[in-house]
Amino acid sequence: MAMRLDGKAVSAHFKGQIAEEVAELTASGKRPPHLAAILVGDDGGSRTYIEAKDRACKEVGFSSTILYFNADISQDELLREVQKINENSEIDGLIVQLPLPSHIDENLITQTIFPKKDVDGFHDINMGKLTKGDYSGYVSATPLGITMLLKYYDIETSGKHAVVIGRSNIVGRPMSILLSDSSETGNATVTLCHSRTKNLIEICRTADIVVAAIGKPYFVTPEMIKPGAIVIDVGTTRIDDDTREHGWRLAGDVDFKLVEPLASMITPVPGGVGPMTITALLNNTLKAYKQYA
Amino acid sequence: MAMRLDGKAVSAHFKGQIAEEVAELTASGKRPPHLAAILVGDDGGSRTYIEAKDRACKEVGFSSTILYFNADISQDELLREVQKINENSEIDGLIVQLPLPSHIDENLITQTIFPKKDVDGFHDINMGKLTKGDYSGYVSATPLGITMLLKYYDIETSGKHAVVIGRSNIVGRPMSILLSDSSETGNATVTLCHSRTKNLIEICRTADIVVAAIGKPYFVTPEMIKPGAIVIDVGTTRIDDDTREHGWRLAGDVDFKLVEPLASMITPVPGGVGPMTITALLNNTLKAYKQYA
Repeated sequence: MAMRLDGKAVSAHFKGQIAEEVAELTASGKRPPHLAAILVGDDGGSRTYIEAKDRACKEVGFSSTILYFNADISQDELLREVQKINENSEIDGLIVQLPLPSHIDENLITQTIFPKKDVDGFHDINMGKLTKGDYSGYVSATPLGITMLLKYYDIETSGKHAVVIGRSNIVGRPMSILLSDSSETGNATVTLCHSRTKNLIEICRTADIVVAAIGKPYFVTPEMIKPGAIVIDVGTTRIDDDTREHGWRLAGDVDFKLVEPLASMITPVPGGVGPMTITALLNNTLKAYKQYA
Repeated sequence: MAMRLDGKAVSAHFKGQIAEEVAELTASGKRPPHLAAILVGDDGGSRTYIEAKDRACKEVGFSSTILYFNADISQDELLREVQKINENSEIDGLIVQLPLPSHIDENLITQTIFPKKDVDGFHDINMGKLTKGDYSGYVSATPLGITMLLKYYDIETSGKHAVVIGRSNIVGRPMSILLSDSSETGNATVTLCHSRTKNLIEICRTADIVVAAIGKPYFVTPEMIKPGAIVIDVGTTRIDDDTREHGWRLAGDVDFKLVEPLASMITPVPGGVGPMTITALLNNTLKAYKQYA
């Protein structure tokens, strides 16, 4: 039976470290790190997520600001709001919650955030730094959180065969780069799989480490897992569940019940990668503060 | 016996197309595209390469300028020269030949080139665009040249297993991204191998397409090749050869003689990927001209 990689506990560990640093900073008279978030419109999921980030900031002693805008805000007005935060020296990091309403060019907004405040790591400059192994930039929170989890559990990646399923710009692609670069949690031989991959089962079965980031509940089945493999589940799809109070539950990309007996280590959903994502965002914000404040 | 992918002929084909476009431009009274190159110091190999680019420019009707500087040029002075070209609206593309002398910060110089003139594709912004599949940027010339070769020969990459050996920022890494993105020459399942890879032989043997970009002569041997695989050889190492007039010959990363009988298609060295690299650079320069001139 696999050991469960406890994202909740690991996240608490790293948040504890961050909180200590912040306490030292403020004790010495400095202002704490400050994360700003922009939420456009009234999507429930986005609001839940932004508010979770807000709570996490407060937990570790960061300042946190959420700017709410109506869905009909013009692109120009939103650009001006981003610029204001860019120029505000009391704010270290800015995230703009995606998706944005369709009349707004998401890429334009993302590229307008100063790279040094882009703690989501979506700016081309940060993506470029990631690609060439320049660690002065920011890596998007989910893949960064996964590397923090790997580091915490002393999981050796060097020389291992890692299979990443999913090539999104936010998770799969950066994860494949991080695992194959020459960093402490890199040096793996990485195969990036996606919707066009043939023989996915056979390929996965050769993996020492599987990262599933496709957003398809229970997609990864036992026949895809080599006994003893490490399984990282990024999926968090809400599926109907009448037995739950709110009528749904979170489903991972991995068929946990069937895969757990085979794997050596596995992340549960919830409580695995999810909590690490917000902690990684805090990490990026502290990094922004240290580099530029 | 494998079909040889004739980089020289394909390069001539694409150069012919570029030359036609330039002829139309100038016939309509417009100035031709203009590539500038900076060469610092007196390295023979670098000079040969820069001069080959210069000749290629002239062949297709581009303007070409080479700026030669002594190896003792200061970093500040070199930065000023880059800035001058950045601001010169008659120049579309700028390449700074690497390596630079050790007192100059190569990354600083590279990041100072305006992204829209960075036809080598080394700027973080261009690297970031590549990573997220935004084709408005520039891809470094060797991997771009390889995709042009794949396109010319109608080589299907979608769903194929491609193994890229070598993770350099200039070739292996961008190649692995291009082959796995959702473009016409992408959608392959890509495994990126490097110095820490174990079982390289076994992994390569599962590949439908092998790209060797490690700079180790004759590294890829027949036992690493699945019969019928397509083999792309990026290596161009000079090795001593008394039988040649100048005392050396170019060696690829692939043991061509032994691999050719197994492969379905293969690039020779010289005459394979090499000529495509310069043609890809011309392509980027024409693209810069069209986007911004």
